Amino acid sequence: MELTPERIVRLEQDAVVLLDQRRLPDEEVELRSRSAREVAEAIQALAIRGAPAIGIAAAYGLALAAEHGEDLGEAYDVLVSSRPTAVNLRWALDQMLGDPTPERARGIHEAEVERCRAMGRHGASLVPAGARVLTHCNTGGLATGGYGTGLGVVRTAWERGLVRHVWVDETRPLLQGARLTAWELETLGIPFSVIVDSAAASLAASGEVDVVLTGADRIAANGDTANKIGTYGLALAASRHGIPFVVVAPTSTLDPGLASGAGIPIEERDPSEISSRFPARNPAFDVTPAGLISAIVTEAGAHAAPYEASLPPVVGTRR
Amino acid sequence: MELTPERIVRLEQDAVVLLDQRRLPDEEVELRSRSAREVAEAIQALAIRGAPAIGIAAAYGLALAAEHGEDLGEAYDVLVSSRPTAVNLRWALDQMLGDPTPERARGIHEAEVERCRAMGRHGASLVPAGARVLTHCNTGGLATGGYGTGLGVVRTAWERGLVRHVWVDETRPLLQGARLTAWELETLGIPFSVIVDSAAASLAASGEVDVVLTGADRIAANGDTANKIGTYGLALAASRHGIPFVVVAPTSTLDPGLASGAGIPIEERDPSEISSRFPARNPAFDVTPAGLISAIVTEAGAHAAPYEASLPPVVGTRR
Repeated sequence: MELTPERIVRLEQDAVVLLDQRRLPDEEVELRSRSAREVAEAIQALAIRGAPAIGIAAAYGLALAAEHGEDLGEAYDVLVSSRPTAVNLRWALDQMLGDPTPERARGIHEAEVERCRAMGRHGASLVPAGARVLTHCNTGGLATGGYGTGLGVVRTAWERGLVRHVWVDETRPLLQGARLTAWELETLGIPFSVIVDSAAASLAASGEVDVVLTGADRIAANGDTANKIGTYGLALAASRHGIPFVVVAPTSTLDPGLASGAGIPIEERDPSEISSRFPARNPAFDVTPAGLISAIVTEAGAHAAPYEASLPPVVGTRR
Repeated sequence: MELTPERIVRLEQDAVVLLDQRRLPDEEVELRSRSAREVAEAIQALAIRGAPAIGIAAAYGLALAAEHGEDLGEAYDVLVSSRPTAVNLRWALDQMLGDPTPERARGIHEAEVERCRAMGRHGASLVPAGARVLTHCNTGGLATGGYGTGLGVVRTAWERGLVRHVWVDETRPLLQGARLTAWELETLGIPFSVIVDSAAASLAASGEVDVVLTGADRIAANGDTANKIGTYGLALAASRHGIPFVVVAPTSTLDPGLASGAGIPIEERDPSEISSRFPARNPAFDVTPAGLISAIVTEAGAHAAPYEASLPPVVGTRR
């Protein structure tokens, strides 16, 4: 089956239908949410994850609520509180309030996919021919509702014949790489191998990595980037071995109000994700300083240091 | 229960008795091996692992065979081939050939523990007061038959009141840190937290790591060190943040015939250790260049760069 945007999440007459990401890669099962509350529950339960994908699902949830004559204020509240830290969620819902129609929700979805395709084009220009790409976490269609940021660049570069192999960090503790990115690459027919996160530095040292592509959760004005735990270590290894380290993220991830990464709070998640038996510490993100980042790719282009000058202005309504 | 050498592995009248490391941390179960063949099977099945611990178990296995009047040539062969890459195994068995008695085997065991205690003393002098130590894999009593290399330094430093906390890398794919090191530290009453391997760089960046202690599988003449996959990335992070990176290993790990780490072959293990569903690449070790290593601690002392000059000579019979 193809990895189309509609397959990740879509609106039908009576339900928001999404590919249940909790069941991947073992089973490809669709989950039907028949009310705004059920959509919120699906988001909360991580049946769909990734900031852009969540925003799209919530937009469809609000359109569904409007079609069914649900109370829209209540629907907004239940959806917006399903994942309190996801900025895109509130942004997408705010977009829907003036025009809570299926058409508007599909417009938001299409615009998100188009932004990813633009990132794919800009980013692919940074991928050398015959590239062995290393990637972390899941930054693909599953996370973005159809195409992907870091993995979207891999897709475009693959279509252009530039990609030889993809190294997939398994991405402990939740294994988004080993479960979701591996599944996407298999579905797309792109050759790949899963590795443990700590093997990346060794592959970089042995000359088997040509470019590192990651996503971002939040980018400060100076280019410092918060992303999934492990990204910083990858950047250190890439820098040591002269490998381009490229961050791919929509402009909605830019936070020009934040001067540097020092101001980014790091979410600490439940230690039981790591060990049920022993005490554990579970930071979910880390911060990669701009000095280790070769380029930041947004839908507006590929931007180089100094990022204060090169990053595009952020459209007001987006945050 | 205390973590004594006898608890890890010992010789009784009719059996070699060892703490079954496959069952840890969930169960503390002893495995009784009643012949050289059964000891070899226990080694092969990873009921006991860690080069020094394997050598000790094999020595006891040969003593048991002698006591029972088994054919010693046959016993030697079955034991030496149980883990073909473990150098200590052959060394310990060769020591036994001239005097295959329980006393000789216990002497080998005691000497190994004494070497570890010496490393503990030398290494602890490099641990600052109030240290938050980061460690990788299992380098404790379980791996060495009683005290430990990297973790032996932690023990001695803890006894001297120097250790505030230990960060335990879970050590994918086989989780020796999350299973075995965590269990040892709990047993010893030393405060610790398990982290995913890729969180180490972030903790280093946030100033929460004061010293990194690891073991080694093989050390070249110039100090380049092969160790469990992930060690190299730790060294990069430690170097970036000015954190001492200390390798702790017996002189039997030194390979003066090897000029540099470039000559160390990297074992690739079964991809199924990482993923049963997708293709995977599973290098078991990586090489940390000497330039990133602050000190190498052996039973002879703490050695600084240049290692060609500072590392002690290797006793001939040891390899």
